[in-house]
Amino acid sequence: MSESPESSPARTSSAGVAAHDDPVYRPAVIDLLGVLAYGELTAFERLADDATLAPTLEDKAELAALAVTEFHHYERLRDRLRDLGVEPVSAMRPFQAALDTFHRHTAPADWLEGLVKAYVGDGIATDFYREVAAYVDADTRALVLEVLENTGHAVFVVDRVRKAIAEEPRIGGRLALWGRRLVGEALSQAQRVAAERDVLTALLVGGVDRPGMDLAAIGRMFARLTEKHAQRMATLGLQA
Amino acid sequence: MSESPESSPARTSSAGVAAHDDPVYRPAVIDLLGVLAYGELTAFERLADDATLAPTLEDKAELAALAVTEFHHYERLRDRLRDLGVEPVSAMRPFQAALDTFHRHTAPADWLEGLVKAYVGDGIATDFYREVAAYVDADTRALVLEVLENTGHAVFVVDRVRKAIAEEPRIGGRLALWGRRLVGEALSQAQRVAAERDVLTALLVGGVDRPGMDLAAIGRMFARLTEKHAQRMATLGLQA
Repeated sequence: MSESPESSPARTSSAGVAAHDDPVYRPAVIDLLGVLAYGELTAFERLADDATLAPTLEDKAELAALAVTEFHHYERLRDRLRDLGVEPVSAMRPFQAALDTFHRHTAPADWLEGLVKAYVGDGIATDFYREVAAYVDADTRALVLEVLENTGHAVFVVDRVRKAIAEEPRIGGRLALWGRRLVGEALSQAQRVAAERDVLTALLVGGVDRPGMDLAAIGRMFARLTEKHAQRMATLGLQA
Repeated sequence: MSESPESSPARTSSAGVAAHDDPVYRPAVIDLLGVLAYGELTAFERLADDATLAPTLEDKAELAALAVTEFHHYERLRDRLRDLGVEPVSAMRPFQAALDTFHRHTAPADWLEGLVKAYVGDGIATDFYREVAAYVDADTRALVLEVLENTGHAVFVVDRVRKAIAEEPRIGGRLALWGRRLVGEALSQAQRVAAERDVLTALLVGGVDRPGMDLAAIGRMFARLTEKHAQRMATLGLQA
């Protein structure tokens, strides 16, 4: 197993309340909630769309249920943004271009590509947000971890993908390439967000009086993300 | 206002329990739950798909929320089918062709057509199922009425459609035609279902020892459905 996120002096709940008035911290948390919310909303759309590709009614209903779970996560994040006095749409808008581009560049060509994207793409995103969650106040962290909770689709997706490869082994090669493309696109759009949203980046790298990762810690984080990604690909029966 | 569904000696709950063993009534109820379940599942898919056409993030989230409501209705019907010892997929399958054809023939060309379809199409279907609900046992009726409950999208859709027509009056002509096409396709697929599923049709028209509508009553039902459709079109600012 890979190591857990860097242990760091994470903000306590009481510190968090104070931190929400902090002119650097507050926009960072709003950015974090905004990118997560738009991520959940687009995940809903993509999964619902992929459900139309399902080969059977059972599979269609399974994927639709995953989509609905993502939408309920979106609702939780939207409500928190409102509680913070922020219009959810304005918090999401800065991330629209990056996420829309990611989805446009990774539109699944078929049902299996959709499943791999749901599993591998969500997996990387979830691992990354969990890392970020170490640097926010306890209330925000609890919400972030809640919406990242395993949506229980692992068993369903793994079963379908492994069966397809067992029946037609060369599918494995194509899906392995697809997995690499997903990671490449995700990294490319993440870099774009990091470059455009200084406050969000500052949450991760820290600053004066602010806990965060140094360059070496960021390197270790990427090593953890990559290792977990390889584990997920292996679980699907794919080479990372 | 139009009159309410024909008052008839609807089955009571206790009669309903016995009726579930009736070799004609039981398949009719399974058909009813099956067509409703597949209707909700496809409504989910269509609304989620239409959400991708939304002009703003607010609208996208609103339509996605409607889609999710339909999915939860599907879950209720699926669970009831399982309680009756029926595999939900096998109950839905007989209606797949008719509903898929309806949606294929009425794929909205844009956001506004999608809204009108959601409002007008759901409206007709809901009115029709409410009529049928008068002829089933109390438990089934309660579930059917529950999943048909107003999903609260009326205000949102009416607002968007009326605004669009106010800004660009000729849109009203196009959408009025669209509304007529929706009704035509709905009737055409309903006839197909009526022809193919005798037991479901028998639920409406009744039979020996079974309450149901005679031809005159069916005529009055169509008059009610048409009148309510015209009211909905008028609410949207469209000529029926």
